Amino acid sequence: MPGLIQSIERSSAVLRLLAAGRLRVKEIADALDLPKSTAHSILRTLEHIGFVEQDERTARYRLGRGLLDLSEGELDLNELRGRALNWADALAARSGEEVRIGALRDGRVVVVHHVFRPDDSMQSLQTGHLLPPHATALGKVLLAYNAPAVDAAARAGLEAYTRRTLTSPRDLARSLTETRERGWSLAVEEWEAGRAGIAAPVRSFGGLVVGAIGISGPVERLCDTRRQARTALVEHVTATARSITRDLAGS
Amino acid sequence: MPGLIQSIERSSAVLRLLAAGRLRVKEIADALDLPKSTAHSILRTLEHIGFVEQDERTARYRLGRGLLDLSEGELDLNELRGRALNWADALAARSGEEVRIGALRDGRVVVVHHVFRPDDSMQSLQTGHLLPPHATALGKVLLAYNAPAVDAAARAGLEAYTRRTLTSPRDLARSLTETRERGWSLAVEEWEAGRAGIAAPVRSFGGLVVGAIGISGPVERLCDTRRQARTALVEHVTATARSITRDLAGS
Repeated sequence: MPGLIQSIERSSAVLRLLAAGRLRVKEIADALDLPKSTAHSILRTLEHIGFVEQDERTARYRLGRGLLDLSEGELDLNELRGRALNWADALAARSGEEVRIGALRDGRVVVVHHVFRPDDSMQSLQTGHLLPPHATALGKVLLAYNAPAVDAAARAGLEAYTRRTLTSPRDLARSLTETRERGWSLAVEEWEAGRAGIAAPVRSFGGLVVGAIGISGPVERLCDTRRQARTALVEHVTATARSITRDLAGS
Repeated sequence: MPGLIQSIERSSAVLRLLAAGRLRVKEIADALDLPKSTAHSILRTLEHIGFVEQDERTARYRLGRGLLDLSEGELDLNELRGRALNWADALAARSGEEVRIGALRDGRVVVVHHVFRPDDSMQSLQTGHLLPPHATALGKVLLAYNAPAVDAAARAGLEAYTRRTLTSPRDLARSLTETRERGWSLAVEEWEAGRAGIAAPVRSFGGLVVGAIGISGPVERLCDTRRQARTALVEHVTATARSITRDLAGS
């Protein structure tokens, strides 16, 4: 049938074969009449995404846990944190602002990691804190790529934290569309008066958004006089997000 | 990571998204930052292989039964028969020999469909009969693409039906390799003295072998004087198998 994607059909055939028994690369290649190198690429990809596993002793492949626990397929937050630690430090140094890494859990943004602004000011560690998704730059990035979470947030009610908080589903939707279109989010005094945030998505394989990284600070440092995000800071944030994505997706 | 197959990674990301909720094409495209047409191709392919389903009323996608019942992913024999009926008739007419369609079930070849030789000779319908996989052309095609079934057959013991039956695992393996290399199988007096068979694989999506179609008849009609299969008959059988495969894989 035209328009179907051959490698996806092949990978499903591999999974059906493995559902019936553990197999070597050569046996899979033989069964599907594929060159061994093609079968190997499919198997490596399926292994990478957790759909198959290889027995180290026998070199045979079997179905993987990731296939059975699809709904538990959320990235482990410790892994996200571990991959992002060094990048977050570098972003704080480059931007001169505090850095947070967050992920959506149960409708809230969990701060997975927090790097202080690199000066001597008094700051308090926010790792583990929960933030409202609709009122923060981190949260808006996470909502922008997660339609069910937007519906859930709207049903729960969009609480007003300042007079700039987006409290109507329509305003929020417009901001999320803009976020997707440019690939980063901006929140200016939507959660706390005088403060702004800039954030960008961190993706795992296949483009799945698994977290966000962002900076926050006084509006006058993050924004220009028209309250638009400063370009250099946006570039620092998005470049950092891309670096973490490369680490995660290539793991 | 180099060498990974992007469309497989993307399809797994789609499955993980759908594990968390029912989504529209646009929502999936937004989540993964893909053009809507790309998301649609992935979804159509996943729907074709049974990994996702679309709710007709809401147009939302959800995970499909095929993903949950991977191990029950064997093609329904009635579907195989239904798709192959007309092709089998045409093969009997063209070759002048009787035609069987078979599939492996529990280590035996089940005759799913049987078309008589197109003459007035007395014949008995064999639909539903069980054949030994290692001693028939149909069976050797089915074994050639199914390593666990070969192991099971060898463990069960390769019974001798004639003095030409392949009764050693090594001889059988050699014949199966040859079958894969040329894409069709030949059995000459391996099951019944005086009779030969030629068969070819029928594949579903992704190249998964789900059945075999073959002709059988007197050795002197199917083979030349060197007991090799007659080329014209091989071409009839393999062309028929390819036609059924196109029907099945494109369904």
